[in-house]
Amino acid sequence: MTQQPSTPAQNTPVTVVGLGPMGLALATALTEKGHPTTVWNRTPEKARDLVARGARLAPSVADAVAASPLTLVCLKDYAALYEALGPVGGAAAGRALVNLSSGTPKEAHAAASWAAERDLAYLDGAIMVPPPLVGDPESVFLYSGPREVFDAHRSTLASLGDPRYLGFDPGLAVLHNAALLGLMYATMNGFLHATALVGSAGVPAAEFADLAVNRFLPTVVDATLVEQAPNLDAGHYPGDLGTMEMNLNALEHIALACEEQGVYTGQPRLMRDIAAQAIADGHGGSNYLAVFEVFRKAAAR
Amino acid sequence: MTQQPSTPAQNTPVTVVGLGPMGLALATALTEKGHPTTVWNRTPEKARDLVARGARLAPSVADAVAASPLTLVCLKDYAALYEALGPVGGAAAGRALVNLSSGTPKEAHAAASWAAERDLAYLDGAIMVPPPLVGDPESVFLYSGPREVFDAHRSTLASLGDPRYLGFDPGLAVLHNAALLGLMYATMNGFLHATALVGSAGVPAAEFADLAVNRFLPTVVDATLVEQAPNLDAGHYPGDLGTMEMNLNALEHIALACEEQGVYTGQPRLMRDIAAQAIADGHGGSNYLAVFEVFRKAAAR
Repeated sequence: MTQQPSTPAQNTPVTVVGLGPMGLALATALTEKGHPTTVWNRTPEKARDLVARGARLAPSVADAVAASPLTLVCLKDYAALYEALGPVGGAAAGRALVNLSSGTPKEAHAAASWAAERDLAYLDGAIMVPPPLVGDPESVFLYSGPREVFDAHRSTLASLGDPRYLGFDPGLAVLHNAALLGLMYATMNGFLHATALVGSAGVPAAEFADLAVNRFLPTVVDATLVEQAPNLDAGHYPGDLGTMEMNLNALEHIALACEEQGVYTGQPRLMRDIAAQAIADGHGGSNYLAVFEVFRKAAAR
Repeated sequence: MTQQPSTPAQNTPVTVVGLGPMGLALATALTEKGHPTTVWNRTPEKARDLVARGARLAPSVADAVAASPLTLVCLKDYAALYEALGPVGGAAAGRALVNLSSGTPKEAHAAASWAAERDLAYLDGAIMVPPPLVGDPESVFLYSGPREVFDAHRSTLASLGDPRYLGFDPGLAVLHNAALLGLMYATMNGFLHATALVGSAGVPAAEFADLAVNRFLPTVVDATLVEQAPNLDAGHYPGDLGTMEMNLNALEHIALACEEQGVYTGQPRLMRDIAAQAIADGHGGSNYLAVFEVFRKAAAR
């Protein structure tokens, strides 16, 4: 009774180049959703399980890219992309390439030019979940590049997760990727360091995690960040509920407590220095979020 | 129809010493819940609004502490505590003191001895919410010191929020406070730095906050931390889903992206160095959480 599109997205062939843990997860999700899936990897042994699930192992990377309207590339970095796809030559003209490798915005811009010279449509992308969550409709995938390329392949990309389009600038996906991963590492380091600190007095990590992650982070930290985000855009940091000077005082106590307890002090010392820099820049009476100015104006120093 | 205790907690007199933003919030919550509240501050003008709400301004700190079985002290640091309470002398023997000032575990131990010499029962405490949330039954307050002192005043402390007892060691409350605040600053810095990075390409903070805080943090980061906490206690960091080497690669891309975009590089460079240290310590094939070993073994280097 449901309406059937003329060509169901699941019938669209897709190629995956690069079968590391993430490439394998992409190809597995695609075969499971019914896409005719072609794969290629420098070491073909990695494809064994996928072939058993119905994927086709291409004899060459040129054959692989030519086999599908859309090729997903998932390699260590952009240098690996040029090396792997170099042999494709003109065989894939008119196909679309979605690059999901790690890199920087400049590298994404260079790859977009490289693809244009080969008459390949190009999107840059980033996967915001670990491999086991690939294929879950809630898993966020970020894409940037020409809107029409995204629109043409959106339904296929939806087989991997929740595809979000960020804009024409091809560097936007890796920029978001770097930003979100940076947030992830900062939060993980914050938690692991805090756990080491209470662990110095014998408190188990599992006990602390419940207080810190289930209670403290969502109610005290996350809620404030979402609420205050518009103030960052406005450069508005009212100090009524606590000033940078008060926060520097707290950061100095944290660094001292770490020293007393024999826990790594590099992280709290850097945070203290960032707050001190904000005060030196004239934000002593602002609230803590004014460290945003230290972060974004680094180039202007 | 409800059972009435012989002395309702709300009738218990309480004294608050120190009327900064947090001390004011404590005294306000206590008067609002019906406790006969006595206050003292170095500059008595700060008490004006409280007196209008029914609090009593004591003529001296000795009078203030003698007026109630329980005194809450909320000052800038432990030095301020000794200075403010020095004049109390023996006038308050047998009363209980709950110190909510910022400090380190060593300072909490010293304050517990100082109180014992004056025949004062002593708890050290920490407030895990900003002033506007004081009085909310969900707001977490942490206490450490003798169990019987906590039990004797638990119902009064419940007028401020959700009182949690951490253990006999009086340093546990400030240690948890330092740990949770360190996590807060690390997470805020992670978010603000990530926002500065996408902001370098014109992405508004309010737009990024929705993706980063409402979607990415809870599903990808927080869930992993709670799930993996027991592995920290076991020192078990299986690298099946991603190794420290892979994470170092990602951290290097983040540092490079920040450099390209003119955003502060100190934070990603430190995170890269921490991961590199974990690899140098033999955790290259472990998952990322093995940086816990770098944090907790700092004193052993």
